[in-house]
Amino acid sequence: MSVNPDRPPEISPEELAEQVALYAPFTQAVRELVDATIRTTVDADTVRAAQAEVEAITARLREQQIEGSIGAHFGHGRARQPWGNTVVGVRNPVAPPVQAVREGDREGEVRAAVVLGAAYEGPPGLVHGGVSALLLDQMLGNAAAAARKPGMTAYLNTSYQRPTPLGPLRLEAWVERSEGPKTWARGRIIGPEGTTVEAEGLFVLPRWARDLLAQRSATDAPPSMFGEQG
Amino acid sequence: MSVNPDRPPEISPEELAEQVALYAPFTQAVRELVDATIRTTVDADTVRAAQAEVEAITARLREQQIEGSIGAHFGHGRARQPWGNTVVGVRNPVAPPVQAVREGDREGEVRAAVVLGAAYEGPPGLVHGGVSALLLDQMLGNAAAAARKPGMTAYLNTSYQRPTPLGPLRLEAWVERSEGPKTWARGRIIGPEGTTVEAEGLFVLPRWARDLLAQRSATDAPPSMFGEQG
Repeated sequence: MSVNPDRPPEISPEELAEQVALYAPFTQAVRELVDATIRTTVDADTVRAAQAEVEAITARLREQQIEGSIGAHFGHGRARQPWGNTVVGVRNPVAPPVQAVREGDREGEVRAAVVLGAAYEGPPGLVHGGVSALLLDQMLGNAAAAARKPGMTAYLNTSYQRPTPLGPLRLEAWVERSEGPKTWARGRIIGPEGTTVEAEGLFVLPRWARDLLAQRSATDAPPSMFGEQG
Repeated sequence: MSVNPDRPPEISPEELAEQVALYAPFTQAVRELVDATIRTTVDADTVRAAQAEVEAITARLREQQIEGSIGAHFGHGRARQPWGNTVVGVRNPVAPPVQAVREGDREGEVRAAVVLGAAYEGPPGLVHGGVSALLLDQMLGNAAAAARKPGMTAYLNTSYQRPTPLGPLRLEAWVERSEGPKTWARGRIIGPEGTTVEAEGLFVLPRWARDLLAQRSATDAPPSMFGEQG
């Protein structure tokens, strides 16, 4: 297994679009395989054959790979992409992926539609309570970033109103208030019968990121590693 | 794509062991593919070839599969396995998987060691704040179940002390107190430099599950869909 320890250079918008066109469908194919892995009832020999093939594909992909995680790679500075992000990463098969858009009248308001399948199950037929917290943490972080007040989660309080069924769901989040590097945000998950989960959280910009932002003009976008979409 | 809508029958301990021996290594292979999908830097043609092969494997696996999610399948009653669970499911490639064991002196105390890789990233090099909440929700639920007071999450308050690095982590959770169908639990994530995230939550057994439990002897195990290990 060889590892490429070099950081790729800053990439252009054209290269970025090309890479998304290559990686997004590949990641989606692996996402489908994850779903099929959970749900398949084919015979044992077919499972074993699939396993051998999957291992062979993995070996080929690992012939050249980054060390560690994606965060420190694939675009620097303004071009940095949260491609590995567990919720929004276009290169992460674990991510549904959530694609939040600016919508609504509240400060930093973001909304998303998502369909959660078998991979996100807790109790039978229901979204894992922790998955709801995971999605809301990301959405609240997105709202903070959309309001140009990005930060890392300091606390997240999640309150479950009713069970969240697997299937199509809506997510929304917005900023309640902010004070220097601190931003308070709220959000909720909406199922077919209304709100299922609500969350409230505090996001704080770490000092090193504050220094980085201070070097930029006030009209620059905040760093994309704090919850923004790629 | 054909779908098998029939519930498989209750399975014996021997069949269960056989199925785990078949599915656990297959799921682990897909988990490795997920990691390689995120980290690979092989050329575009190799990515496209891998995508075509993954799609072919998925199609074969889907020739026979359960409808929907795993929760309602694969063992009924006492034999029910949370195999699809996002955190502990042995058939879910999204699950690290966390394997919690009874350990420690506190009521319902459970502990686990886990290594989180590229798929669980939020900020560069760090565990996604929502993933920490996801793991803690499961651990607190496990503690409630281990104390024979299982329930679904009513609220989960997660507090972030310091960033959680990707890599090896320890998890622990225990029951603080309980009152009828309500159980309060606490837990934390411990990284190389100490506690990174703490959580406190309330778990409530739904009425339908209370009725189910009342039909069983007091020495029976609680239903495994509420946070217990498979």
